[in-house]
Amino acid sequence: MCSGDDRHCPQFDLHRQQLLEDLDAERRSFLKSAFVATGGVAALTAGGDLIRPAEAQTATARQGRPNHHYLPATAETVHWGYFSKLLKPQIEIDSGDYITIEALTHHANDDAERMVKGDPGAESVYLWTKEKKGVNRRGAGPIDGKLLGRGAGEGLGVHICTGPVYVRGAEPGDVIELRIMDVKPRPSANPKYSGKAFGSNAAAWWGFHYKELLTEPKPREVITIYEIDATGQRNWAQAVYNFQWTPQTDPFGVVHKTIDYPGVPVDHSTIKENYGVLKNVRVPIRPHFGVIALTPKEADIVDSIPPGYFGGNMDNWRVGKGATMYYPVAVPGALLSVGDPHASQGDSELCGTAIECSLTGTFQVIVHKKASLAGTSLAQLDYPMLETQDEWVLHGFSYANYLAELGETAQKTIYEKSSVDLALRDAFRKMRAFLMNTKGLTEDEAISLMSIAVDFGVTQVVDGNWGVHAIIKKNIFVGAEA
Amino acid sequence: MCSGDDRHCPQFDLHRQQLLEDLDAERRSFLKSAFVATGGVAALTAGGDLIRPAEAQTATARQGRPNHHYLPATAETVHWGYFSKLLKPQIEIDSGDYITIEALTHHANDDAERMVKGDPGAESVYLWTKEKKGVNRRGAGPIDGKLLGRGAGEGLGVHICTGPVYVRGAEPGDVIELRIMDVKPRPSANPKYSGKAFGSNAAAWWGFHYKELLTEPKPREVITIYEIDATGQRNWAQAVYNFQWTPQTDPFGVVHKTIDYPGVPVDHSTIKENYGVLKNVRVPIRPHFGVIALTPKEADIVDSIPPGYFGGNMDNWRVGKGATMYYPVAVPGALLSVGDPHASQGDSELCGTAIECSLTGTFQVIVHKKASLAGTSLAQLDYPMLETQDEWVLHGFSYANYLAELGETAQKTIYEKSSVDLALRDAFRKMRAFLMNTKGLTEDEAISLMSIAVDFGVTQVVDGNWGVHAIIKKNIFVGAEA
Repeated sequence: MCSGDDRHCPQFDLHRQQLLEDLDAERRSFLKSAFVATGGVAALTAGGDLIRPAEAQTATARQGRPNHHYLPATAETVHWGYFSKLLKPQIEIDSGDYITIEALTHHANDDAERMVKGDPGAESVYLWTKEKKGVNRRGAGPIDGKLLGRGAGEGLGVHICTGPVYVRGAEPGDVIELRIMDVKPRPSANPKYSGKAFGSNAAAWWGFHYKELLTEPKPREVITIYEIDATGQRNWAQAVYNFQWTPQTDPFGVVHKTIDYPGVPVDHSTIKENYGVLKNVRVPIRPHFGVIALTPKEADIVDSIPPGYFGGNMDNWRVGKGATMYYPVAVPGALLSVGDPHASQGDSELCGTAIECSLTGTFQVIVHKKASLAGTSLAQLDYPMLETQDEWVLHGFSYANYLAELGETAQKTIYEKSSVDLALRDAFRKMRAFLMNTKGLTEDEAISLMSIAVDFGVTQVVDGNWGVHAIIKKNIFVGAEA
Repeated sequence: MCSGDDRHCPQFDLHRQQLLEDLDAERRSFLKSAFVATGGVAALTAGGDLIRPAEAQTATARQGRPNHHYLPATAETVHWGYFSKLLKPQIEIDSGDYITIEALTHHANDDAERMVKGDPGAESVYLWTKEKKGVNRRGAGPIDGKLLGRGAGEGLGVHICTGPVYVRGAEPGDVIELRIMDVKPRPSANPKYSGKAFGSNAAAWWGFHYKELLTEPKPREVITIYEIDATGQRNWAQAVYNFQWTPQTDPFGVVHKTIDYPGVPVDHSTIKENYGVLKNVRVPIRPHFGVIALTPKEADIVDSIPPGYFGGNMDNWRVGKGATMYYPVAVPGALLSVGDPHASQGDSELCGTAIECSLTGTFQVIVHKKASLAGTSLAQLDYPMLETQDEWVLHGFSYANYLAELGETAQKTIYEKSSVDLALRDAFRKMRAFLMNTKGLTEDEAISLMSIAVDFGVTQVVDGNWGVHAIIKKNIFVGAEA
């Protein structure tokens, strides 16, 4: 498949032109500040309470004071299912600025009553009638949908990503530090569900379990809708009901026998809602973003599903409030996007998804220039790394940079080549390099320490490029930086 | 290789006779109570402080009161590198009894000065002169050592296991509950190192890193000696020195170019001790037993390295003080053995070993009869399961029961067939069964819950049969049993 980024494709010029027109057709406006776009301060207060928006609004003028920006999720501010260095930024920020970003789950249409209805942002993104689609392209596939017949973009990539955010001064070779200041569930806008938020868990065909089902009918896809307390009083989710996926006909008339295209509205008259499931089960919430991505440089349009050196769909539940992420910058301005919000997930994300639940995050974004990295914990960082108060968490993948390693068919073949064994090897190599480069250990010291004090876990086995993370406690290093 | 347990071997009768003679030749005495064997109460007090030994000593006579036994580690009470249902038990206990068991690390001879010298138990086990070897068989291989030329048992299995303990009333189909009441490091008996305990970490040829080394000389094996505070004041270990393995000639004249046979005394005049390694690094200790095994039924003599349904060399650092283990019983009396003590280990045990450090554990052993299991968390348990105050931890392996699944060559082929992917699949299947069988969930409920609330981690990738564990929080189940 050439999406306009394979220069060896005989029809490259045509495809390239189509891609550029397509991206342009979404009429992304280049906004100096989305504040202006949202038309006021009102929307801001819902997002983050750490920063006083009124102060932030006027901060631009003040010398040396960080600004606070707000980027809502609307049909205009999201890109769905792909990353692209060709996308026009939605907003420009400076190093040190704060930004509140709304992220919408791409599973909201599993129960539109609870997760879309009455919410202007979600309604604009999910708008889909016979005549009109709020966001046409969903995925990195061909825009005409003639390859697989699923729809524009073919669902080769599924996440609603808000952005990109252009970070001034960020250049290839630099590192972006992203501090997650706050994460809040997005309340249902339907008055029937006041004070509640909802999420969807899809046990889907790409899940690790799918070919292993015990009970009939086999195979099957099952959606479970979960309720979360939007007021923050309760720290657990509970199941509301589940249903088995039935063929769904989208507004353009395409029948989706399986969950093969994101945002297809589920017609609840065609499914059976089973209540009373997971009775007496309380799922501790771990609100986090499955996708936080800088834009990769290797291809012009990149499927949002496989994670890589640029971050992306890492699906590590530790990427929540209080965590700090570090990413290597691949393109000018870094082009940061946020999506795939989760209310909770376990290590492995076994069945294919988490509790997919819209969230709003507040971040501080800091640029570390390449020349300043030597001798710090960010030296030679070429992968996404997480820092908490107590730990460093390094992310390994089956292929550290699958876009470069797997050649021109990378975006297809990555789905056939992943394994946990490979991801463990990558995580081991990264942790060894981290200990040698940033802690000054010899290889023998690093290897011994990894065996006795580093924990390797299965991040996810459902995102094409499978993940293993390696965790080391910071206080192992006596007198080391906090 | 036929060790006397392959009935299809043309020389089965001969090999069988050799095996039986060999096991018998170790002259294991059947001890009603090891108390008698150790000759007194003095040794007891070092072991566990939860149980008053004087009381325990006389408890046998009291109706309905549990007894407290003590099983020291000596050349007479250990079996080295294998499990066998043919072994005579060292001690017999009742369900509900307490037992303190000494476990010796099989790496003590990496630094005999610190880990063997002056310790009568360790000295008797490690005794090896030109004329005499305290424990001859080390491993499940042929006793004549002519297969690989390494020595008796060929090092096909490496752990010094104390036991077996015969649990009265335990029959195949029952479950043994093993409560780990206390775990204490074994202090160095060398007055030079008073108040300290020591452990060895070997970055060895079976490690995950071995073929991936960056620096010269390649390949190499490196031993790092760690110091632990035996008084319990400090909860961290620190490195003392490391050295590169050089060919070591054992007292029988066999040269060991690599670490291919357990307990070979390292001649420190042939190696270079590098001090100052891992300076300013403090490794949090996680004292635990790498090996706790009930004896498997599938073969008469079983390599101690690959773990399986019977437990064995699971190498999960969570198997420490306060944890409770459950194992399915395969042979009459269960035949429990304990070994492979570790001061600390990370998930994956990447380089091949942990901090291998002698420990003494105090356990309570309870038999759950098969008929009593239905409706409990132990229903249909056919694998080792760990319970802590907060969690259930289920253990998956590349092959759940490799001895049965891989046929007659199982003990050889398991080393060629392991992967984390397979172990993850097994852990998934077990957790699904646990949730369905013991929590009454449907398959769809179980699968959804696994994706959002169960964490899968890499237990070890160095023990032949690789492991993935699955952790679920108990308080997810509202009003469930504590």
